Amino acid sequence: MPQFLSTKDEGFESAFQALLGAKREDSPDVDAVVADIIADVRARGDAAVLELTAKFDRLELDAAGLRFSAAEIDGYCAQVSAEDREALEMAAERIRAYHARQMPEDAFWEDDAGASLGWRWSAVSAAGLYVPGGIATYPSSVLMNAIPAKVAGVGRLAMVVPTPDGDVNPLVLLAARISGVNEVYRIGGAQAVAALAYGTETIAPVDKITGPGNAFVAAAKRRVFGKVGIDMIAGPSEILVIADKDNDPDWVALDLLSQAEHDESAQSILITDDAAFGQAVADAVEKRLQTLERRAVAGPSWRDFGAVITVENMDEAIVLSDRIAPEHLELCVADADEMAGKVTHAGAIFIGAWTPEAIGDYVGGPNHVLPTARSARFSSGLSVMDFLKRTTLARMTPEALNAIGPAAERLAISESLQAHGLSVRARLDKLNRD
Amino acid sequence: MPQFLSTKDEGFESAFQALLGAKREDSPDVDAVVADIIADVRARGDAAVLELTAKFDRLELDAAGLRFSAAEIDGYCAQVSAEDREALEMAAERIRAYHARQMPEDAFWEDDAGASLGWRWSAVSAAGLYVPGGIATYPSSVLMNAIPAKVAGVGRLAMVVPTPDGDVNPLVLLAARISGVNEVYRIGGAQAVAALAYGTETIAPVDKITGPGNAFVAAAKRRVFGKVGIDMIAGPSEILVIADKDNDPDWVALDLLSQAEHDESAQSILITDDAAFGQAVADAVEKRLQTLERRAVAGPSWRDFGAVITVENMDEAIVLSDRIAPEHLELCVADADEMAGKVTHAGAIFIGAWTPEAIGDYVGGPNHVLPTARSARFSSGLSVMDFLKRTTLARMTPEALNAIGPAAERLAISESLQAHGLSVRARLDKLNRD
Repeated sequence: MPQFLSTKDEGFESAFQALLGAKREDSPDVDAVVADIIADVRARGDAAVLELTAKFDRLELDAAGLRFSAAEIDGYCAQVSAEDREALEMAAERIRAYHARQMPEDAFWEDDAGASLGWRWSAVSAAGLYVPGGIATYPSSVLMNAIPAKVAGVGRLAMVVPTPDGDVNPLVLLAARISGVNEVYRIGGAQAVAALAYGTETIAPVDKITGPGNAFVAAAKRRVFGKVGIDMIAGPSEILVIADKDNDPDWVALDLLSQAEHDESAQSILITDDAAFGQAVADAVEKRLQTLERRAVAGPSWRDFGAVITVENMDEAIVLSDRIAPEHLELCVADADEMAGKVTHAGAIFIGAWTPEAIGDYVGGPNHVLPTARSARFSSGLSVMDFLKRTTLARMTPEALNAIGPAAERLAISESLQAHGLSVRARLDKLNRD
Repeated sequence: MPQFLSTKDEGFESAFQALLGAKREDSPDVDAVVADIIADVRARGDAAVLELTAKFDRLELDAAGLRFSAAEIDGYCAQVSAEDREALEMAAERIRAYHARQMPEDAFWEDDAGASLGWRWSAVSAAGLYVPGGIATYPSSVLMNAIPAKVAGVGRLAMVVPTPDGDVNPLVLLAARISGVNEVYRIGGAQAVAALAYGTETIAPVDKITGPGNAFVAAAKRRVFGKVGIDMIAGPSEILVIADKDNDPDWVALDLLSQAEHDESAQSILITDDAAFGQAVADAVEKRLQTLERRAVAGPSWRDFGAVITVENMDEAIVLSDRIAPEHLELCVADADEMAGKVTHAGAIFIGAWTPEAIGDYVGGPNHVLPTARSARFSSGLSVMDFLKRTTLARMTPEALNAIGPAAERLAISESLQAHGLSVRARLDKLNRD
């Protein structure tokens, strides 16, 4: 059974704080192992990657075999059914269209002082995409990481995906091809992250690494950060559904379960202003759990981390929602648009009962890589911005320097940075001499 | 003497790689100490902060004394000369005007399938700004961190600045007041970062922490990352000047020295297509070093990490510049605008000989917090974006769900995520029944 809470309960505040603070994931401390792997790949390149791949993925390769050839990818892509291909292509097209709108604009203007100022965006030259292998291998994640990179203009996009015992998911390779991935390597773990960050004889280094992975991958990304850029280190998935009683309890139950089935550490929360509806949803969850394929995952998640919170009114729901700062927020209420406008902290909002969160995982268009663990208070989902960087621009005329230079000189002197001041003064002196 | 390199030299490539790879900073490993300090502040709040402030800053306070009162700030501000105040206000106004243009726009549109999609930006609710005390206390850094936060719409901006032995820089407090900082606390070090991240009885927690600091502050920021957002961990400053022979060697020398005087680990590089001009600049640097106030800092920086690189033509200069990915790039060449357009990786570009880098440190308008250590390949300077986060929005109509839902269901099934598929299917079934 999930927790049932009501804001009317005396102990609500402490129970709610406990829910917010619950540690849902116990990451094993693998940092020392990962440090050794990275050092090994830096020192020995391909040879280290090949040995570690033989050890962890039980796969004997030579350097030439690290990369999937175009013909191999052709072969795997041909195994995908026409229906799956069509679905992937529709998803890719919609994700591309959404992210194309995110492209920021350059600017350059002249101000009153005669100074020309602005900025220019440019894409990261080369990016690396980590894709997990094994059981949780998601072609949708390939689309969600690779398409924003390509929309941003990343020239070289290298993907790594481990193929334990040689097992390959053809949909993952098709997703890579549809997304415009340039290179695919059959490696994984910390060794793949190290190869992307530092390069080997076969794999050229990249400037930015994104994509989900296990504890080893997360630790490796943390370690190479600085040498390259990385995306967020995502925690287990979360959904908050705010629903009034005029909803089908089964729809809401399925939406809650669609997060719970990801991971035993996932968290699904319902907030409603009708206790009986909350109970009906909980009942519907139990019923669905009896037959759900992934009930061995979704059941523990719902029991251990799920919650049904009854509020006195929907204004209370918004306050609680902002405190949760959910990764996914689904609003199944009468005026969902209005409520969406009142929410401040959420990774993604799904507005209205006809917008199940699963739409956002695949074909909605917005990115499904979103801030977890309350980090929507200060961070955003993956976007084209993650593959762009901004260079600021400034150009002074002699007149502009004459207008604003003395203030710079003054501040430089106040900070005891004499050369800063002199670099301005030397130019002003020339102006005054001429 | 700095290094003199020429692309015509046989050993150039390896010398250039050594220059790029030079480890300029040896950060002491303070992580264990910092972990203890953070745990102490989490456990004991104000009491821990007060004890650590007495220990490290030799300053006995009680909880009520942690925060500067408005009257105290008034008193310090009154000590600032009219000229310094005017210079600070001009700088603030120009920084504000530049950053106001960075505010990104919200979007919401309906696509062909009838799906409404978009995003909304919102400010971080509360931000913390770290300001170093002691010798390198820079009011300009207060402006550069606080103004973007306030332009973004951050409601509560709390600043911490250590005051060792009670020493306060009035300009820092005036900069805070001009920037709209809401609270100022006289604490520093890892204990200040912990207080901002986790809160104490006196200091409410924030959602994002920015600002420079020593090795303890940097380690503390790394440790609280995740609980709160942080800005980049900046390394020592760098400048690359690309200059042709039609420049005053003394101007270029002063620009190189204005980075070198920051820090013995700073790096100043000149690239020129005229070896004699390069020598003339090096001579001018030596001459200025004889009298420069901070020659004890600038001299070692220039000797140990400075370089004068002669290229055969300016196209070579651009290639080398992109490999360096400098924090600051100054273009003192005939067609500086054209060259600026060809550069891909740089934190900030200063276009033309009338734009000394020092202008950008104070009054230009763009931010002076910029990516160091080659990270301009994948990251950007501080901006209003650092204090904003994006919530993505999606709203389906029944018709839109009917159009794109089946593809989502298909992909969910291919990923063995049955509940995802069922959450779409349940709604499609209702549509088909009706």
